[in-house]
Amino acid sequence: MRRMGDRPKQLGHLEYLGDATKQAPKIHALIPRCALLENFSPAEVRLLAHFMDLYRANAGAEVLREGDPGDFMLMIVEGRVEVRKRDAAHAAQLLATLDAGKTVGEMSMIDGEARFATCVATAPTVVAVLDRESLARIIVEQPMLGAKILMELVLMLSQRLRATSARLIGALDERAAQAANVV
Amino acid sequence: MRRMGDRPKQLGHLEYLGDATKQAPKIHALIPRCALLENFSPAEVRLLAHFMDLYRANAGAEVLREGDPGDFMLMIVEGRVEVRKRDAAHAAQLLATLDAGKTVGEMSMIDGEARFATCVATAPTVVAVLDRESLARIIVEQPMLGAKILMELVLMLSQRLRATSARLIGALDERAAQAANVV
Repeated sequence: MRRMGDRPKQLGHLEYLGDATKQAPKIHALIPRCALLENFSPAEVRLLAHFMDLYRANAGAEVLREGDPGDFMLMIVEGRVEVRKRDAAHAAQLLATLDAGKTVGEMSMIDGEARFATCVATAPTVVAVLDRESLARIIVEQPMLGAKILMELVLMLSQRLRATSARLIGALDERAAQAANVV
Repeated sequence: MRRMGDRPKQLGHLEYLGDATKQAPKIHALIPRCALLENFSPAEVRLLAHFMDLYRANAGAEVLREGDPGDFMLMIVEGRVEVRKRDAAHAAQLLATLDAGKTVGEMSMIDGEARFATCVATAPTVVAVLDRESLARIIVEQPMLGAKILMELVLMLSQRLRATSARLIGALDERAAQAANVV
């Protein structure tokens, strides 16, 4: 699907396994665990896989690095990834542990802004990569598939935003309560 | 565009002004102030307006109510709206003040979950409403326009999620610092 020079340089330290078409059955098997794919048919998964590339990361390898540029998202096909973000004291805080079916990096794929957190493989891991250019091609060449992917992304971001907003309101409430106790 | 019975019952207390087609020039004039429309051409705004309905709200009227069901979003065409959410003590906290060009309710349009906050008109206000069924029709009938709307929604949610996550991390840091001071 893709010329060598087109591959994201941020993934240059990972082993390139070719396009994801041959792993389409494996990706299809992720559907019950993958919010992005939950409404996809086998035919749609095959179509999507055609636009994705596979990479293998050894345990310990960073697959995304906080602050890096990057216009691609990752779907974990096998393995495990820890999501870590530096706090104000620059200590890495574990935000989440993700396994097969989970996706990361959607925000940068869409808005092109710096990575929000670092993702480190903690086991041998295979990821399927979708970049913005491929998403744009899907929208033009397969508009219904494109709309489906975008709709699922909106849904996922919406749910994450609800959860994060609820945590923020909880934290602000607690902070106010703590401040009241101090006074 | 729409039969009487199809209009959202949550908007029954507002004055229905018909479909948004005749206000397309006014909606087009919002582009510089509207993240959703920032990459829209006049022709695309006209197409979109065809799928939206206009409502007038008097000052003091609720246009969305926290906890309500609802599968539509609103674009403020003129006027002003306050966004308020109840905190743990059930006091309404002002989250934001929005004017022409701002959109609210995208999350519920997409995920069908309860409204996260209440929006109250604080001046005579006109809103353009897009519901999930109309968005689905746009995707089928005008797939490129549908993809454009969804892409803008993903972008907006992504930016809100980044901002909210940054505020959450800030609040958690401050709470930790406060706790350390107390100890």
